[in-house]
Amino acid sequence: MHIIITGAAGFLGARLAMKLLEQGELAGQPISHITSLDLAPCPVEDARIDSIVGDISDPAVIERAFRDDTIAVCHLAAIVSSHAEAEFDQGMQVNFDATRSLLEACRHRGSHIRFLFSSSLAVFGPGMPSPLTEQTAPQPLSSYGTQKAMSELLVNDYSRRGFIDGRVCRLPTIVVRPGRPNRAASSFASSIIREPLGGEEAVCPIDPDFAIWICSPETIINNLAHALSLEGERMEACRTINLPGMSIRVTEMIESLERVAGPETTSLIRYERDAQIEAIVYSWAPLFDNQYALSLGFGVDEQFDDIVRAHQHYMSRQQG
Amino acid sequence: MHIIITGAAGFLGARLAMKLLEQGELAGQPISHITSLDLAPCPVEDARIDSIVGDISDPAVIERAFRDDTIAVCHLAAIVSSHAEAEFDQGMQVNFDATRSLLEACRHRGSHIRFLFSSSLAVFGPGMPSPLTEQTAPQPLSSYGTQKAMSELLVNDYSRRGFIDGRVCRLPTIVVRPGRPNRAASSFASSIIREPLGGEEAVCPIDPDFAIWICSPETIINNLAHALSLEGERMEACRTINLPGMSIRVTEMIESLERVAGPETTSLIRYERDAQIEAIVYSWAPLFDNQYALSLGFGVDEQFDDIVRAHQHYMSRQQG
Repeated sequence: MHIIITGAAGFLGARLAMKLLEQGELAGQPISHITSLDLAPCPVEDARIDSIVGDISDPAVIERAFRDDTIAVCHLAAIVSSHAEAEFDQGMQVNFDATRSLLEACRHRGSHIRFLFSSSLAVFGPGMPSPLTEQTAPQPLSSYGTQKAMSELLVNDYSRRGFIDGRVCRLPTIVVRPGRPNRAASSFASSIIREPLGGEEAVCPIDPDFAIWICSPETIINNLAHALSLEGERMEACRTINLPGMSIRVTEMIESLERVAGPETTSLIRYERDAQIEAIVYSWAPLFDNQYALSLGFGVDEQFDDIVRAHQHYMSRQQG
Repeated sequence: MHIIITGAAGFLGARLAMKLLEQGELAGQPISHITSLDLAPCPVEDARIDSIVGDISDPAVIERAFRDDTIAVCHLAAIVSSHAEAEFDQGMQVNFDATRSLLEACRHRGSHIRFLFSSSLAVFGPGMPSPLTEQTAPQPLSSYGTQKAMSELLVNDYSRRGFIDGRVCRLPTIVVRPGRPNRAASSFASSIIREPLGGEEAVCPIDPDFAIWICSPETIINNLAHALSLEGERMEACRTINLPGMSIRVTEMIESLERVAGPETTSLIRYERDAQIEAIVYSWAPLFDNQYALSLGFGVDEQFDDIVRAHQHYMSRQQG
């Protein structure tokens, strides 16, 4: 059977492709083939993965990805928050209209395709009662969050009507992301661990006493695969799940780094507050109630030291 | 200055047109003209109202409604919940795509048009902590509620970005609606008062001990006009307001009717439970926290007896 992954050129999508091939089956059916749908080819070298390079906001591109034996779509492609804020129309097209086109393509196949949609804690605005739950209203303070929240509603309605078998996962901030710093406001959270471990300087742009809501790449990938495997009946009427995370202050992250890699490493962190980044990061909720997700069997990180060690291990494999 | 009202052929839209003309000004500017945009002409006979008869899901029809001096759009047109449930694509077009086209038309005028969007308690699903507030997550169990909730998010984002000056009002069930029973699940709530007052039989299809969340037509119209008049700065970041209502059990409504109109009137009510209507009505939250709306100066009904008397008065004016 066949699975489509949008955004599979990216870090999460590529890892999810590998994870699903490793897992080998979905809902008792063998996974024989994955189609990556993204602006670049999927970097994973595996004969079972083919790549369609194209813009998902073009319904004709979407149509090309489906096969007669498509049983699932994992929709991870999006333009990031700063991009969607700068380019409103493009954000609507990629983050919302393309989701709608994908849902329509599934609906018209009529085979109750599993649809995994990756959303974000950016759907939430500030000033909400803590901890946040699935019953907290999304009041996004960004166009990215708005587009994700609208898509979530649509995935839920398509599921309720039986057009698809949807599941929506809201992702915490992922730490440690591999690669280089980017323009996302959350970029520093990975940077302050990743760059010092690589012997480079990093900047902490916010008050290090502030707590953020994070999850490791390993746990996110396991949880996305779990979300896809979950029987729809196990979920409540609403198919939206806040994936589990851990709340940690930036100082605690740096203490962890020092325990694992020593004070020479943490001495590479400079503290230079950036008002723009602070404004965005402080609007994010630092604490969610994991209870519902845990009751569905999703996993959670326990120790930040383990996350630092896992990234060290990842780096040594990349170098080896 | 000029105001557009979509849905002004309907009961609420027509009354809102009259109310705004009576009020005579908006934000210190005189209201000289109103354009009704609906499938039928606005029934109000007033030289200051003209009607465009057309489908709001056609952007060309929307474009015709705007003038150089348009300062506000009141977007009330929608297809009702049972219709949107039966015709998914039409619901998306009328209840969501048309909202988006209207927002785009306002945005491209660049004059920060006030945009009043009428939403509904149908955005909420069952199982939420009581009382509901603006911080409760919309988890609609209908396509109508989904389309309204998506539109709400869009109105908020357009406002945040300064494309429009939006305000979203979620309406309680309106009792007593004039006219005839319709296919809406809430239709009985007006029927059990209106028909007996007119000497006709009515059916109560749910357990009369169940409470519903209601508002009178007079209060709704005053509140919609207030929402339009409110300075945007008075609202919090989120422009969505649950309009105030009162929670009342059906038995209490009938006791009220009996106090006002006597036992001969209430003897016209038959009790025949209808499982389909019960399922929908029981999914609605019977209690909201009015605090935020009241802090913004919105009004609320105090006594159901007054609502019954107001409808009696309305009937005698119609007959006279």
